[in-house]
Amino acid sequence: MKIKKESGKSVKIIPLGGLEQIGMNITAFETESAIIVVDCGLSFPDDDMLGIDMVIPDVTYLKDNIEKVKGFIITHGHEDHIGALPYVIKEINAPIYATKLTMGIIENKFREHGIMNIVRRKVISYGQSINLGDFRIEFVRTNHSIADAAALAITTPAGILFHTGDFKIDYTPVFGEMIDLQRIAEIGKKGVLALLCDSTNIMKPGFTMSERTVGRTFDAIFADQSDNRIIVATFASNVDRVQQIINSAKRYNRKVVIEGRSMINIISTAIELGYLDVPDSIIIDIEELKNYTDDQIVIITTGSQGEAMAALSRMAASIHKKLYIKPGDTVIFSSTPIPGNEKSVSKVINELSQLGANVIVQDTHVSGHACQEEVKLIYALTKPKYAVPVHGEYRHLKVHAQLAKEMGVAKENVFILESGNVLELNEEKGKIVDNVPAGGVLVDGLGVGDVGNIVLRDRQLLSENGLIIIVVTLEKGSNQVLAGPDIVSRGFVYVRESENLMEEAREVVDIVIDKCLGNNITDWGKIKVEIRDTLGDFIRRKTMRNPMILPIIMEC
Amino acid sequence: MKIKKESGKSVKIIPLGGLEQIGMNITAFETESAIIVVDCGLSFPDDDMLGIDMVIPDVTYLKDNIEKVKGFIITHGHEDHIGALPYVIKEINAPIYATKLTMGIIENKFREHGIMNIVRRKVISYGQSINLGDFRIEFVRTNHSIADAAALAITTPAGILFHTGDFKIDYTPVFGEMIDLQRIAEIGKKGVLALLCDSTNIMKPGFTMSERTVGRTFDAIFADQSDNRIIVATFASNVDRVQQIINSAKRYNRKVVIEGRSMINIISTAIELGYLDVPDSIIIDIEELKNYTDDQIVIITTGSQGEAMAALSRMAASIHKKLYIKPGDTVIFSSTPIPGNEKSVSKVINELSQLGANVIVQDTHVSGHACQEEVKLIYALTKPKYAVPVHGEYRHLKVHAQLAKEMGVAKENVFILESGNVLELNEEKGKIVDNVPAGGVLVDGLGVGDVGNIVLRDRQLLSENGLIIIVVTLEKGSNQVLAGPDIVSRGFVYVRESENLMEEAREVVDIVIDKCLGNNITDWGKIKVEIRDTLGDFIRRKTMRNPMILPIIMEC
Repeated sequence: MKIKKESGKSVKIIPLGGLEQIGMNITAFETESAIIVVDCGLSFPDDDMLGIDMVIPDVTYLKDNIEKVKGFIITHGHEDHIGALPYVIKEINAPIYATKLTMGIIENKFREHGIMNIVRRKVISYGQSINLGDFRIEFVRTNHSIADAAALAITTPAGILFHTGDFKIDYTPVFGEMIDLQRIAEIGKKGVLALLCDSTNIMKPGFTMSERTVGRTFDAIFADQSDNRIIVATFASNVDRVQQIINSAKRYNRKVVIEGRSMINIISTAIELGYLDVPDSIIIDIEELKNYTDDQIVIITTGSQGEAMAALSRMAASIHKKLYIKPGDTVIFSSTPIPGNEKSVSKVINELSQLGANVIVQDTHVSGHACQEEVKLIYALTKPKYAVPVHGEYRHLKVHAQLAKEMGVAKENVFILESGNVLELNEEKGKIVDNVPAGGVLVDGLGVGDVGNIVLRDRQLLSENGLIIIVVTLEKGSNQVLAGPDIVSRGFVYVRESENLMEEAREVVDIVIDKCLGNNITDWGKIKVEIRDTLGDFIRRKTMRNPMILPIIMEC
Repeated sequence: MKIKKESGKSVKIIPLGGLEQIGMNITAFETESAIIVVDCGLSFPDDDMLGIDMVIPDVTYLKDNIEKVKGFIITHGHEDHIGALPYVIKEINAPIYATKLTMGIIENKFREHGIMNIVRRKVISYGQSINLGDFRIEFVRTNHSIADAAALAITTPAGILFHTGDFKIDYTPVFGEMIDLQRIAEIGKKGVLALLCDSTNIMKPGFTMSERTVGRTFDAIFADQSDNRIIVATFASNVDRVQQIINSAKRYNRKVVIEGRSMINIISTAIELGYLDVPDSIIIDIEELKNYTDDQIVIITTGSQGEAMAALSRMAASIHKKLYIKPGDTVIFSSTPIPGNEKSVSKVINELSQLGANVIVQDTHVSGHACQEEVKLIYALTKPKYAVPVHGEYRHLKVHAQLAKEMGVAKENVFILESGNVLELNEEKGKIVDNVPAGGVLVDGLGVGDVGNIVLRDRQLLSENGLIIIVVTLEKGSNQVLAGPDIVSRGFVYVRESENLMEEAREVVDIVIDKCLGNNITDWGKIKVEIRDTLGDFIRRKTMRNPMILPIIMEC
């Protein structure tokens, strides 16, 4: 079936995550008869989401329209684009389309979740198109900080939508070829209805540097540190960065140890699928380390962001079971800290320095995302009627919107969408016509969505001042106090040092209960409120703190 | 009394905070007969110090030697150098010596704490010396991001110690004069035993820019935004920055509103003491705003670090009582985010953008701290025998130690001190001879030191997975269950959606109690352990979570 533009037809663009949940990239595209979903990422919890492991998208809208959902199209293999798939696919079991490495990484996830056999998957090559309902989707080669990233040219009855995914322009990529600018121009020449373009680096003027430039700095460090053991921390998914470390290792006759679970997983997949060029026997097992001297070794590890449980952090804290930092070790942080991680990274650097390691923070100026001039080039090649900036915080999208106008998109044709907005586009006009349920669902352990605002508020309160529990047993009927009130506290104060305070608190509660029962108040709810208010006031006056106060009344 | 160098005499340097508690700057200097204390700062809590308001130094060592303590010498008026004074002075009531503005800021604090009348204070001018026991301390003019900062030349029987405090070299300061390099050279010429020098910016090559350069960027922004209301957020204590905003306001005919409690406090003090040059009637009250148009107004506010309760953050969240952000407002962030604050700053910028404000993040490259070349100059002028890098994380001190060696200090004469280390120095040698109690004391509300590791661990546990309380009432003697077990949870899951889970949990507990009582286990401690273990396993298996489990047994 050939998808053709038909006059009067519209297409809807519906971000189900994104702006409010940075990283949770998932966008539905809808025509009269079909829905396709681009990406399915997860977001890491904000600081105030205590105890939450991750945030996945609310796909109520897709469930409500499940018969229309034709498939998931994945642009590349980063967590913020694929991380929620194992959860979402259990509810919306539509086929998944992705390039080879991306699919390999997705399959690792499915294997971990034990759902490989239930998922339909199809590997797509650059230049290949697939038809899903009245959508035709072509995968277009781009560059990014992971190989096999794709932009999508989505032909619909309303016109062509061009979605860049996460991208940069790298004329000299480490692996594979440069972004297919010719094809993008060709698509642009046909006429692009809307451009959805990456905004991550929109604040940065100029161009981002080629990944290849990092290779030279590795060579320089390897030459300089010829006597020392070298440990390099980087993102597991940055296969090209790993390739360059391996290249330098080869040049300087060092063996390579791969450490950290996600690093081992992704590197194995990349080698297996042919995305890493690894000389014979250069990679050795961690157990073989003892057969080599320090100057013969490079360790490539996770932990470049100071993540508490990553391999490098465990080495820094001297709790890694097999690797011990020693004076003279050279540790290279080969990734810029993601905002919010600066303090954790500093902590790990301090610990490594205290163990005598020489720490090098590689300031590469290399990013996986397009800067302003690269984004402008995409606008110049596609000349879209509508612009929908994607992938960024509000401040980024706002700056991107301004740039789109400068690149010739009419003011009223630039849209900053919030999660759940339904943007309807056709040749005539674009308009936000509806809002559908969207947003984050909290995952805590095995629980998906069973922790919400009330639970989080309780955790917040408990974390700040702990709690005081008051238990009292009343006699059925007579309401006489049979036992208690007993007071138990946790996370409040050292009880031993505050015996007086706790004793006074008990007396306060005694008086409240006597008063309630004396006034024939037998509604336990009322008694609890009285205890909570009176004891709360007392504690606040004495300590300037607000612990959670939890009265429990037993009856027997 | 003239302090003279006497052969064979030693001096001890004892940091009571610092390395492990960044910001908690407090150092004791001790001779045979006297102790002086330089600075008395507080540290803000780490992310894992849940509910803690601040960390102040453990001054046990000073209390144990209280008769020797001659005074507190304060280098400048920043929180990390004065913040703990109101707490420490209650325990060690020694006189305080500081320059005029520094003392003004300290007095604000004492007034808030209601202890002005109990504290002895003396304002010292640059070039002036004071004798305390066998110490003579001279205040030497420096530059920093707050006016009236001083370095200290401390003459002791063992020789001269030179302590830079926080400093930079500003040849063209906004207020007052440049750092007194002549006097530092003169002191150096006499012979400096040890240099204690600021390490904050030691990672940065070159020189830091003059504060005055920021003035030009303000002028440029004011010229550019001639129709809009301008709101500038900066550190309250950066009086020179405020001066430059006022200068630009005057040039562009705008009135100035000062907003935020700490901003109002410090600006008032600075005006009163003559550290701000404020044209007549340029400052107006917030209530007078309505009499002016947007292009006639500048608001100077706190909140440049995204602090949740600061004035700018409240404006951004639309909860400020008197100021409302409107489209067209220009908001300038005039301070670089302190590591760890990046995410909060981003959040505020996003909120402001969503309200339509135009946000400018001023990338000034101006800092209050010396970069590498400035530090080298101080070494060149003082030529110390010993180097004790101060004010920085371990990684900074390590780089500073390397620089000290390059500047000619012998390897064995460079000391990186941890809190509580006692470094003894004399002409012959330097050695860490002892360790005294030192470190942080946690302040939570009115409580000083009543929250420790156990309480923090409980708060951590509660914050991650909440808690489950099991209450059961047993009959005295017979140990029959009279009431319960009842289960109450907080911060765990939505109970309504997890009724089954809680019911199953109750059954688990029922069985445990029956089994214990059936086996004649009457030791309540043992019963509690059984409940905790069995229910913990059950919950973990079902949910992959580890809530705190708190069994309470009542007797009646």
